[in-house]
Amino acid sequence: MEGTLTDEDIIAVDAMGSKKGPSMILQALERAAEEGSFHFLVFGESSIQIPQSLRRHTELVPTTQVVSDGMKPLEAARLRDSSMRRAILAVKEKRAAAAISGGNTAALQALATHILREGKSVRPALASCWPTRLGQCVMLDLGGNINCSAADLEHFARRGKAFARAFLGVERPRIGILNTSYSLDDAVRPRERDAHELLTRAEDLHYCGFVNGADMLSGAVDVIVTDGFTGNFALKGMEGAAKAFGSDLRDIFTGSLLGRIAYVFSRGAIQEKIKKRMDPDRFDGAALLGLPNPVVKSHNGAGAEGFKNAIFVASRLLRFPELFA
Amino acid sequence: MEGTLTDEDIIAVDAMGSKKGPSMILQALERAAEEGSFHFLVFGESSIQIPQSLRRHTELVPTTQVVSDGMKPLEAARLRDSSMRRAILAVKEKRAAAAISGGNTAALQALATHILREGKSVRPALASCWPTRLGQCVMLDLGGNINCSAADLEHFARRGKAFARAFLGVERPRIGILNTSYSLDDAVRPRERDAHELLTRAEDLHYCGFVNGADMLSGAVDVIVTDGFTGNFALKGMEGAAKAFGSDLRDIFTGSLLGRIAYVFSRGAIQEKIKKRMDPDRFDGAALLGLPNPVVKSHNGAGAEGFKNAIFVASRLLRFPELFA
Repeated sequence: MEGTLTDEDIIAVDAMGSKKGPSMILQALERAAEEGSFHFLVFGESSIQIPQSLRRHTELVPTTQVVSDGMKPLEAARLRDSSMRRAILAVKEKRAAAAISGGNTAALQALATHILREGKSVRPALASCWPTRLGQCVMLDLGGNINCSAADLEHFARRGKAFARAFLGVERPRIGILNTSYSLDDAVRPRERDAHELLTRAEDLHYCGFVNGADMLSGAVDVIVTDGFTGNFALKGMEGAAKAFGSDLRDIFTGSLLGRIAYVFSRGAIQEKIKKRMDPDRFDGAALLGLPNPVVKSHNGAGAEGFKNAIFVASRLLRFPELFA
Repeated sequence: MEGTLTDEDIIAVDAMGSKKGPSMILQALERAAEEGSFHFLVFGESSIQIPQSLRRHTELVPTTQVVSDGMKPLEAARLRDSSMRRAILAVKEKRAAAAISGGNTAALQALATHILREGKSVRPALASCWPTRLGQCVMLDLGGNINCSAADLEHFARRGKAFARAFLGVERPRIGILNTSYSLDDAVRPRERDAHELLTRAEDLHYCGFVNGADMLSGAVDVIVTDGFTGNFALKGMEGAAKAFGSDLRDIFTGSLLGRIAYVFSRGAIQEKIKKRMDPDRFDGAALLGLPNPVVKSHNGAGAEGFKNAIFVASRLLRFPELFA
């Protein structure tokens, strides 16, 4: 590695965290290096070949263990030489400024929290942007924090606000709490009721009240706050819907001669409309907020384009140190 | 009304429960009467004109009050002469075999439970089918039962099983519990953990374990069981997604001359694929299960085709008395 690097430029990459293998990740790094200025510490098996084009910006740190998808967080923590753990450790030891992995979300969250969290700060939440009918929306927690308190939701709202300012460029993000109804009726869970009170009183937040499932796409608010069970469900459901809709469209446009002709005529609009909205790669890169350093989760099924976008999420997070105060 | 009717044929209709007004509902009744054999008790304002074609099968019962969308269940219950309440009461009094409304879900659920529930039976759940990549899937509770116990989820599983047998024609429906992970790890909520144990032990159920948000569309199971908070969110989210896709497609195919040409070539495939999957009207009609009689909720934004389908759901429910044992 060249001597001119500063810590801030270096991203620690878990090269073993994708279903598609290290080669997809190297491809993503190549694309990222073409479009931006990056330096990578790549953690993964010693047989990984760093491509010529990346050698100036990249160092391979061989690791011998891999956190698998089905592994429980405690099992994962026992693997002292896993690529995931070593990547996070590099951030802790200031050899990298941010870490990125497409691996086991629960393990990543647990390892990042355990290794990076200082003092008794509240639990980190996973946040991501996705496309609405009007623009984009931030939702958190997507990461499976299943036992959230009302105070956690308030923390999520503040982090979501900072994230929306950084990523959506909205000065005063509108914030909603996910609920089954728009009003404070008998059917509101205690957590949502209490969080509603907290956010109503919080003068620094532009709280707009309850939102429901349809508002994930309606664009009614910029930030949707919810517990990690519902958020995880939403994330998986959106991915599933995108896949199903994409496969429908493919069937329409490849299933018959007429369909193929139709595709010729509508290609531009399809690219513009559907790919923009539905391509999960385009919105890859969820940020773990509530830690002193950026840790980014790439979708496990992401392609090189998705992982590249997740790298840009990490790089963007580094430009907003207030997110990690 | 003619003297030849039997109770079983009569459906009590809340004509005031749609955003689109009583005229849409009368249109739906006309369509239903063309395709099937129905008799209707229509509850609504006295100015409603029953069309000629329906007069032989339909009686208008004038009511003076309307349950509005934002109304809390307790407020709704105070309206003694609401079209919604009177429709349910007709079922209780055996003047109709089933009730249907497109109105306020929480009020419908509360009124139906209060009026129809006998003894100390467990809470009713709202169940509906929707299209997956492989076929259809039943999900419950969609209705906002936010404080469910593991035992409630077990009840939902049994009702979902009966519903799937009736509506999907599956002899031995595969059942899954919605969760953030597929395995019984540390991040499972106590409710899901306990329900998992209960269903694993239940020999009459074909329980397949946990499923996640992507399985709403994957077709991995026939029945997905979850609490009413998550289910309500799923329902609203699906409706929102369907709307967003629909508007994207409309934009593609009407936004330009090329798009309109493309539509000519792909119309058949679009009808076949997208409308089948995404048209909320096609899957309208959610059943309130756990009461001695069928009560059907039509989607508030449904058109005449949707409300007609919901009437057929009611009629189908009447063919499966074991669902109301």
